[in-house]
Amino acid sequence: MKKGYLLLILLLAALLPEVAQAQAVSIQRINPTNWWVGMKRPNVQLLVYGPGAGTLTYTIAYPGVKLVKTNTVENSNYAFLDLTIAPTAKPGKLQIVGKKGSQTLTRAWELKARDNAAKAQGVTQADFIYLAMPDRFANGDPSNDKFADLRDPNSDRANPFFRHGGDLTGAAQHIGYLKDLGITAVWFTPVIENNQPLTNEGGTMRASYHGYGFTDHYNVDRRLGGNAAYKAYVQQAHAAGLKVVQDAVYNHVGNTHWFIQDLPMKSWLHQWPTYTNTSYRQQPITDPHASQIDRKITLDGWFVPFLPDLNQQNPYVANFLIQHAIWSVENFGVDAWRIDTYMYNDQPFMNRCNAALLTEYPRIHIFGESSVSNVVDQSYYVKNNINFPFKSNQPGGLDFVLEGAMVDGLKHDGSAQRMYEALAQDAVYQDPTRLVTFLDNHDHDRFLSVIGEDFSKYKMGLTWLLTTRGIPSMYYGTEILMKNLKNPTDAEVRKDFPGGWPGDKEDKFTAAGRTAPENEAFDFVKKLATYRRSHPALHSGKLMQYLPENGLYVYFRYGATGTVMVATNTTDKPVALPTARFSERTTGFSKARNVLTGENLASIATLQLPAKTAVVLELQK
Amino acid sequence: MKKGYLLLILLLAALLPEVAQAQAVSIQRINPTNWWVGMKRPNVQLLVYGPGAGTLTYTIAYPGVKLVKTNTVENSNYAFLDLTIAPTAKPGKLQIVGKKGSQTLTRAWELKARDNAAKAQGVTQADFIYLAMPDRFANGDPSNDKFADLRDPNSDRANPFFRHGGDLTGAAQHIGYLKDLGITAVWFTPVIENNQPLTNEGGTMRASYHGYGFTDHYNVDRRLGGNAAYKAYVQQAHAAGLKVVQDAVYNHVGNTHWFIQDLPMKSWLHQWPTYTNTSYRQQPITDPHASQIDRKITLDGWFVPFLPDLNQQNPYVANFLIQHAIWSVENFGVDAWRIDTYMYNDQPFMNRCNAALLTEYPRIHIFGESSVSNVVDQSYYVKNNINFPFKSNQPGGLDFVLEGAMVDGLKHDGSAQRMYEALAQDAVYQDPTRLVTFLDNHDHDRFLSVIGEDFSKYKMGLTWLLTTRGIPSMYYGTEILMKNLKNPTDAEVRKDFPGGWPGDKEDKFTAAGRTAPENEAFDFVKKLATYRRSHPALHSGKLMQYLPENGLYVYFRYGATGTVMVATNTTDKPVALPTARFSERTTGFSKARNVLTGENLASIATLQLPAKTAVVLELQK
Repeated sequence: MKKGYLLLILLLAALLPEVAQAQAVSIQRINPTNWWVGMKRPNVQLLVYGPGAGTLTYTIAYPGVKLVKTNTVENSNYAFLDLTIAPTAKPGKLQIVGKKGSQTLTRAWELKARDNAAKAQGVTQADFIYLAMPDRFANGDPSNDKFADLRDPNSDRANPFFRHGGDLTGAAQHIGYLKDLGITAVWFTPVIENNQPLTNEGGTMRASYHGYGFTDHYNVDRRLGGNAAYKAYVQQAHAAGLKVVQDAVYNHVGNTHWFIQDLPMKSWLHQWPTYTNTSYRQQPITDPHASQIDRKITLDGWFVPFLPDLNQQNPYVANFLIQHAIWSVENFGVDAWRIDTYMYNDQPFMNRCNAALLTEYPRIHIFGESSVSNVVDQSYYVKNNINFPFKSNQPGGLDFVLEGAMVDGLKHDGSAQRMYEALAQDAVYQDPTRLVTFLDNHDHDRFLSVIGEDFSKYKMGLTWLLTTRGIPSMYYGTEILMKNLKNPTDAEVRKDFPGGWPGDKEDKFTAAGRTAPENEAFDFVKKLATYRRSHPALHSGKLMQYLPENGLYVYFRYGATGTVMVATNTTDKPVALPTARFSERTTGFSKARNVLTGENLASIATLQLPAKTAVVLELQK
Repeated sequence: MKKGYLLLILLLAALLPEVAQAQAVSIQRINPTNWWVGMKRPNVQLLVYGPGAGTLTYTIAYPGVKLVKTNTVENSNYAFLDLTIAPTAKPGKLQIVGKKGSQTLTRAWELKARDNAAKAQGVTQADFIYLAMPDRFANGDPSNDKFADLRDPNSDRANPFFRHGGDLTGAAQHIGYLKDLGITAVWFTPVIENNQPLTNEGGTMRASYHGYGFTDHYNVDRRLGGNAAYKAYVQQAHAAGLKVVQDAVYNHVGNTHWFIQDLPMKSWLHQWPTYTNTSYRQQPITDPHASQIDRKITLDGWFVPFLPDLNQQNPYVANFLIQHAIWSVENFGVDAWRIDTYMYNDQPFMNRCNAALLTEYPRIHIFGESSVSNVVDQSYYVKNNINFPFKSNQPGGLDFVLEGAMVDGLKHDGSAQRMYEALAQDAVYQDPTRLVTFLDNHDHDRFLSVIGEDFSKYKMGLTWLLTTRGIPSMYYGTEILMKNLKNPTDAEVRKDFPGGWPGDKEDKFTAAGRTAPENEAFDFVKKLATYRRSHPALHSGKLMQYLPENGLYVYFRYGATGTVMVATNTTDKPVALPTARFSERTTGFSKARNVLTGENLASIATLQLPAKTAVVLELQK
């Protein structure tokens, strides 16, 4: 007996590890979390994650769905299942069955029917985009300001690095405000979960309230209201005639992203022998004389130490990101797609990703952030007219060059010369009207502060933004004269919108809560935006610009739907401008209406231009 | 009798005007002054000029030569004869016969045999071009300094606007000097007759010593020695292994040009209701949003009031200019073709003109002056990679963008950052190595003065010029530290080369006549130029440039013929530079020779870079 007992113990001991392992196998996540029938793209690759998920043998029995291949990788906690979904497949829940020896795991995964809701409507020159940071715009639900189980469990409006509690419910409460202002599309900085800790690294605070460090692609951050609130926001926006732009991040994720904490494989990320930051330099990508190492550092160096750089040449990573993009549009119904740090991504991947979105959603607009300093580099990242070795298929992009030209011009000599010169290089783009224009954003000094809080320059800049070519976007608060330079931190230009929080002493969402200058600014933007919205010459009209002379810059938007003349006197003296020089565009017109003042001009032979003013004239026969 | 006498008088009176006119008919000029048999282009259009030349009926009886058509124009003093010259035509003098009534005029015109002399050899990166202004370089023949029958009959070296007497004989006497310096090609500002008056228009002196106001295309200015001296110069230069670049001007001529004084037709020039100057602005040409009037002013506005703007869309003008270009190369044997004010010319005409030259002379290099501020505009005027509506066929161009980048960088922060960024945009060009690079020229402030007479910057700039991509050119006197800003006039940067005139107190053509710093400069240029001349890595080697870091800029010229590393420390402190970062280019090399110091480096693992120095290393295995 004693001997037999001992044997039994030995036997159990020998078996235990296997038993323990078998018991621990589980499926914790499947990404995408669902899919749809009737998509143009028939393939989906499911990332299946859980302890030992890569050791299971998978089967799926569902009509029209075929499990083509199960891929295993270095980390046995991952399996990648290649599915094809036939056009004939019906919506429903299918069972993903994983077996290992005698153990069988089953997880349901849904194939949904596509809804008929408006989605992927795109943004065009007919739009005016409002960029807001949800944490800093409006707090509609104080119950979701903080969660004890998140890595950063705090909320404190007094601290620039902490979460402030803004959310999608709050944003939804101000859809009417934006509509009133003349906005037609909202672009939020990323809404996806950023369950990152707030850290202090040698005096440098690492916060995630901005949203650029995803930790779970398939969850909208709970503090913003989660997936439900986002979906509700899009529906309410659409109901009000507002479009929604989603801010996508492919280049990196937060370092506490769940898949970063248990990497599928080494090549999931760009790994370096020692930490290597990107150089943030544009040249090595487009320079025909560049070295491989400089290109590699720009592309594969990390954006910051806490945002691991995804290797999009890894096909599993690429599939993951592309599917997430499609999933987001289909699931939430967003209309356009802004892409963060576009130039740091693998460009062949970006082309595949863009093509995948455009195949599913032909009208969607895609515009990436490539913060570059010249039109050659800017054109590289969009459909262009330069025979680069690599040809981008991106339809749009953020026009950093024009931003610099408009704002630096106003700042340095108050002139439109740089703006004129930037636009004069539009031949490099296949379609410059699809670029998204702006005067500042969440990463830049605020426009009003850059131009020395000069209200005349403010009006000139906004007039240019809203009348020149491109799709205008405006950073939240510009309309109520929010200002600040980034010094000491980015948070300076990401202040809470006054009135967005319960109990705010000031409410700038209402005319009564705004000061006189703020109302003047608001009304100015509103007047221009409203005019723009209803006047197709500013949507589809061609641009003709004249050489600036003596500080006067004149351009036209013109076409079958009308002619709008914008004559800017950037000097500090009133000027009488004879218009004979502009006869190519003024012939056939004799009168005009001043769009901003409402004044009717009985003659346009000579225009009276006040000092430091952009006069907008609708020409009339 | 009385009645009969009266009738005779009346008859004579009626005939007199015709007789008077017939008597005045004459042929004073035929341009081109001759042609050649065996040219690829079979057509020649002769401009025949003289009182009533357009009223004659022309015939030519010469085997292989056919007078296809005689064209008459508004001014009856011109006829344009369209000839075709068969491949079988023999050299010889043919008679151009013009008849009117009983009057017959006959003028001989020669069809020459082509010589076998070297011509149209082109310039490449293997060359180093020296730009000199003949009136200000060396006076080899004081007997031709001035001529009483010229509109400006004076010569006075003490006056910056007067002719100074420099000539081609003087230049020929210093071919050895240039060879010693390492020069391989000479580019003179135009040598063609500028028989313009010296005028003072409201305090603005209008001089023509610079040569850009032609008055007779087929004569080299007598003050430079005429056609014979120019031909002799080219022969002597070729015998010494120096090439010659001719400076062509198509855009305009001097207002005392013989054909301006008796215009063939109104459309010979761009005529304006009131005088209209070009705006000198590049944008209206390339801007897709430009107005027609802005384009027209840039292109058809006059360069200055005394240089009438030729209308190259007039086919007679176009033929005249194209034929003169071919004639110049064939007659004088020049090797390359620099084109003045290239961007102001009609670009379709320029393409035809370039094609005509390249058809006859496939190796010739053509590089125009388009003084623009960005690579998009610069690329427009050369073979480029941008799908502009107009496609230039010009093989080369002067690299104004790189000039600005190198010099402004050195001037403003002493760095190579702008240079790096300019070169990084080379993707816009089909072949940036065919651009002609420079640090200054006869229209710009002299390099040494722009950089604050900083000898370290001087050496860095020249090292970059002589080692980066492109065909380097240097303005005369740079090698002996000639300096000056253009203020008050351009003549400040066009001073006489000391030693070029008999009796000059200083002779900078000799080492003994140069100061120690001048000799240091001369020897520096000579050392680099001589090294360049014999090291094909600097001619045909590819360029690889690394991102400047901490004021250190490193690039390589490399290929099958070797690798040259240029490491510039633009900071004011010595730096030890580890080279591991450059392994893509340094792998396989362990040693190096410092080209400028002669020092041998036993290891290239870490380079010692003195402050503000560009170190040139020939890498060795």
